[in-house]
Amino acid sequence: MDSITLIAMASIITAGITTSIGCMMPALGEGKAVASALSSIAQQPDAAPTITRTLFVGLAMIESTAIYCFVVSMILIFANPFWTHIIAK
Amino acid sequence: MDSITLIAMASIITAGITTSIGCMMPALGEGKAVASALSSIAQQPDAAPTITRTLFVGLAMIESTAIYCFVVSMILIFANPFWTHIIAK
Amino acid sequence: MDSITLIAMASIITAGITTSIGCMMPALGEGKAVASALSSIAQQPDAAPTITRTLFVGLAMIESTAIYCFVVSMILIFANPFWTHIIAK
Amino acid sequence: MDSITLIAMASIITAGITTSIGCMMPALGEGKAVASALSSIAQQPDAAPTITRTLFVGLAMIESTAIYCFVVSMILIFANPFWTHIIAK
Amino acid sequence: MDSITLIAMASIITAGITTSIGCMMPALGEGKAVASALSSIAQQPDAAPTITRTLFVGLAMIESTAIYCFVVSMILIFANPFWTHIIAK
Amino acid sequence: MDSITLIAMASIITAGITTSIGCMMPALGEGKAVASALSSIAQQPDAAPTITRTLFVGLAMIESTAIYCFVVSMILIFANPFWTHIIAK
Amino acid sequence: MDSITLIAMASIITAGITTSIGCMMPALGEGKAVASALSSIAQQPDAAPTITRTLFVGLAMIESTAIYCFVVSMILIFANPFWTHIIAK
Amino acid sequence: MDSITLIAMASIITAGITTSIGCMMPALGEGKAVASALSSIAQQPDAAPTITRTLFVGLAMIESTAIYCFVVSMILIFANPFWTHIIAK
Amino acid sequence: MDSITLIAMASIITAGITTSIGCMMPALGEGKAVASALSSIAQQPDAAPTITRTLFVGLAMIESTAIYCFVVSMILIFANPFWTHIIAK
Amino acid sequence: MDSITLIAMASIITAGITTSIGCMMPALGEGKAVASALSSIAQQPDAAPTITRTLFVGLAMIESTAIYCFVVSMILIFANPFWTHIIAK
Amino acid sequence: MDSITLIAMASIITAGITTSIGCMMPALGEGKAVASALSSIAQQPDAAPTITRTLFVGLAMIESTAIYCFVVSMILIFANPFWTHIIAK
Amino acid sequence: MDSITLIAMASIITAGITTSIGCMMPALGEGKAVASALSSIAQQPDAAPTITRTLFVGLAMIESTAIYCFVVSMILIFANPFWTHIIAK
Amino acid sequence: MDSITLIAMASIITAGITTSIGCMMPALGEGKAVASALSSIAQQPDAAPTITRTLFVGLAMIESTAIYCFVVSMILIFANPFWTHIIAK
Amino acid sequence: MDSITLIAMASIITAGITTSIGCMMPALGEGKAVASALSSIAQQPDAAPTITRTLFVGLAMIESTAIYCFVVSMILIFANPFWTHIIAK
Repeated sequence: MDSITLIAMASIITAGITTSIGCMMPALGEGKAVASALSSIAQQPDAAPTITRTLFVGLAMIESTAIYCFVVSMILIFANPFWTHIIAK
Repeated sequence: MDSITLIAMASIITAGITTSIGCMMPALGEGKAVASALSSIAQQPDAAPTITRTLFVGLAMIESTAIYCFVVSMILIFANPFWTHIIAK
Repeated sequence: MDSITLIAMASIITAGITTSIGCMMPALGEGKAVASALSSIAQQPDAAPTITRTLFVGLAMIESTAIYCFVVSMILIFANPFWTHIIAK
Repeated sequence: MDSITLIAMASIITAGITTSIGCMMPALGEGKAVASALSSIAQQPDAAPTITRTLFVGLAMIESTAIYCFVVSMILIFANPFWTHIIAK
Repeated sequence: MDSITLIAMASIITAGITTSIGCMMPALGEGKAVASALSSIAQQPDAAPTITRTLFVGLAMIESTAIYCFVVSMILIFANPFWTHIIAK
Repeated sequence: MDSITLIAMASIITAGITTSIGCMMPALGEGKAVASALSSIAQQPDAAPTITRTLFVGLAMIESTAIYCFVVSMILIFANPFWTHIIAK
Repeated sequence: MDSITLIAMASIITAGITTSIGCMMPALGEGKAVASALSSIAQQPDAAPTITRTLFVGLAMIESTAIYCFVVSMILIFANPFWTHIIAK
Repeated sequence: MDSITLIAMASIITAGITTSIGCMMPALGEGKAVASALSSIAQQPDAAPTITRTLFVGLAMIESTAIYCFVVSMILIFANPFWTHIIAK
Repeated sequence: MDSITLIAMASIITAGITTSIGCMMPALGEGKAVASALSSIAQQPDAAPTITRTLFVGLAMIESTAIYCFVVSMILIFANPFWTHIIAK
Repeated sequence: MDSITLIAMASIITAGITTSIGCMMPALGEGKAVASALSSIAQQPDAAPTITRTLFVGLAMIESTAIYCFVVSMILIFANPFWTHIIAK
Repeated sequence: MDSITLIAMASIITAGITTSIGCMMPALGEGKAVASALSSIAQQPDAAPTITRTLFVGLAMIESTAIYCFVVSMILIFANPFWTHIIAK
Repeated sequence: MDSITLIAMASIITAGITTSIGCMMPALGEGKAVASALSSIAQQPDAAPTITRTLFVGLAMIESTAIYCFVVSMILIFANPFWTHIIAK
Repeated sequence: MDSITLIAMASIITAGITTSIGCMMPALGEGKAVASALSSIAQQPDAAPTITRTLFVGLAMIESTAIYCFVVSMILIFANPFWTHIIAK
Repeated sequence: MDSITLIAMASIITAGITTSIGCMMPALGEGKAVASALSSIAQQPDAAPTITRTLFVGLAMIESTAIYCFVVSMILIFANPFWTHIIAK
């Protein structure tokens, strides 16, 4: 097991785990937010535009945490500075 | 256990785990959103178009986190830069 | 333990785990959606067509995450690029 | 521990785990759906045919995820391509 | 530890685990369904026949997932193709 | 550690674990069903015969999953085909 | 570590674990059933005989799963066929 | 590590674990039953004798599962047939 | 690591674990019972003597399971038959 | 690693774990009891003396389980019979 | 790894774990008690002095379990009898 | 496994885990906050500006904890002082 | 791995774990207390000063458990007696 | 694996884990507090200034526990006394 293999394995496994674990709770949080939005619209149809607008801002905030994980995952696969250093050696 | 076998094993196992764990919570979040949509329609049938439209936007947002995981999984199986580098060596 | 055995074992175990874990939450999410649909129909029988239609779209979305896992599992068993590469060597 | 024994052990263990874990949540989801159907019938006996029909479609969808796991399990026991390749060697 | 012992051990342990884990959630799901049936009968005694009939169909569906696990378990003990292959060798 | 000792140990441990884990959820499910039956009788004393009859059928269904585990456990202790094969050798 | 010591250790540990894990959920299930019985009696004192009778039948069913575990535990300590076979050898 | 030490260690550890794990849920179940009894008495003071009597029978049933674990624990410490056999050898 | 050290270590660790795990749920169960007693007194001050008396009997029952664990723990520290046998040898 | 070091390490680790795990649930149980006492006083200020008295008896009972763990912990640090025996040797 | 290093490491790790785990539930229990106190004051402002007094006594009791853990932790760092014995040797 | 490989592996794995675990609860907390905001707007549409403003401040506070984790993760990948020291050696 | 490295590693890891685990529940407990304070103020605005004062005392008590963990963590990093002893040797 | 590598690895891993675990519950606690603030404003818009002020003080208290973890994490990366000592040696 040379250095290149080890760095590659660590990058592959971490990239997968980061995305999969990091996407769990945003999905649940968005589900909760959407569910609340729908029952709010049903309760107060006149406020639908305000509710929808607030929902989209909130979903964007929640999605941002999933994006962080996806970004870290992509960095580890396609722009990994440790991998660059090792294969350049 | 040479480098090729190790990279291949890590890719196979990570691809599977990423998809399976990453699809757990989106499914639960969508279930919660759909459940809320149905009870909202039952409560306010007149708002059905607004509710359905908001539901579909929300489901797309939630599904996107599952898509991230599926994409990472496919990258690891079919476009893995570490695997390409190893077998090219 | 040669390379072929290791790749085969990793593929078998990952294929099983991916399907089994990936099918847990879709089943729970669909159960929640169906349960909500039934109590909504009981509450507002006149909206049954709208509720049923929205339910089926939602179930399809939730089922899709289980399908992703099943697809990854089938790819690992019947169209595994790593296995193809190893036995071709 | 030769290759045949290892592949056989991995197939046996994975087949069992896949079915057992994969059947947990469908059973819970169906229980939730049936429970909701029964209380809906009690609340609105006139809508019993609609409720029953929607319940059966929903149960079929939920059962399908358990079927996926059972199918993967049966493939691993009776139509395992890795096992076929190893004993053919 | 020869091959026969290893296959036998894997079959014994997997058969037990499959049945025990696979029977957990069906039991809980059936308990939930029966509990809902009883409170539904108490609420609407006139709908008892419909409720009882729907309950039995639902219980059969839930029990089916436990049966899958029991079947896999029995296959591993009494009709294990890997065991047959090893002792035939 | 010869084969006989290993098969015996695996059988002992699996038999115990199978019964203990497999009896957890049936006990909880039956508790839930009985609890619901008692509050239903208190709410609608006139429907007691129907409730009691449905309860007993339901308890039998739930108990059946515990019986599966107990049966597998007894098979592993007293009618284990792998043990028979090993000590016959 | 000869065979007798290993079989004895496996039997001791399994006997203890089986009883302790197997008694967890029956105790919780009975607690739930008794709690429901008491609040039912408080709500409908006239139905006390019916409630008490149903409670005792239900407790007997729940206790039976704990008994299974205790029986397996006692078999492993005092009537263990594997231990009999080993010390007879 | 001779046989006597190993059997003694397994007995000590199992005896402790059996009692501690086996006493967890009975305590919680009894707490739930007592809590329900107290709120039932507060709700229907006239039914206090019936409630108290049913409570004591229920507590005895729940306590019995804790007693099973304590008995197994005492057997392992003071009447362990495996220990007797080993030190007699 | 001679026998005396091993038996001593197993006794120390088991004694601590038994008491700490065994005291978790009795504390929670008693908390639930006391909480219910207090709200019952607030709801029905006239029944305070009956409630208090039933509470104390219930607390004694719950405390008994903690006592079992403490007793086993004290036996393992101060009256351990295995330790006595080893140091007597 | 001589006997003295091993006994000392086991005593230190067990003493800490026993106190920390053993104090978790008493704290939660007392929190629940105090919370219930406060809402009971708010609901029925006239019954404050009875509630406070019952609360203190209950807190003492719950605290007793934490005391058991603290006592075992102190015995293991300052009056450990195994440590005494080893350093006396 | 000589004795001094091992005892020091065990003391450092145990001291940290004891405080951190032991402070979890007291914090949660106090949060629950304070939350209940605040809603009780809002509901019955006239009983604020009684509620506040009872709250402080309760908080002191709950804090005491955290103090036990902190004390054990400080003993292990600054007055550890095993450490004293080892470095005196 | 030289120092550079080990530091690189630790940095890669820690960077991924930090982001993925650290983004779980902020996503859930934001989901809860957004859900509450939407139902509050539906309940009191006139207070929408105040609710939205408070929501955004709260979301910023919650997001800040996810930012901390992302910052630590970026430091470990792109400005790791330990890595700088090792490769400078 | 000499003594200095081992003590340093144990101190670093324990300091981090102690602070992180020890800060989990205080944060949750404070969140619960603040949430209850806000809904209490909304329900009874006149009692705001009393509620705010009680809240701050309660927060201080809850924060104290987090402080204990932070103090232990700082002691392990900056005033570690074991580290002082080892580097003085 | 020399001392410098080990200290560096322990610092990297602990810094990441400390921040990620330590930020979980503050985020959840703040989410709960913000959610309660929003529903309180919706219920009592006149008390918005008091609610907002109390919310911000509460958020600061909760955020402080996350800050502790971030501070410990930064100390371990940029002002680690153990690292300073090792590289100075």
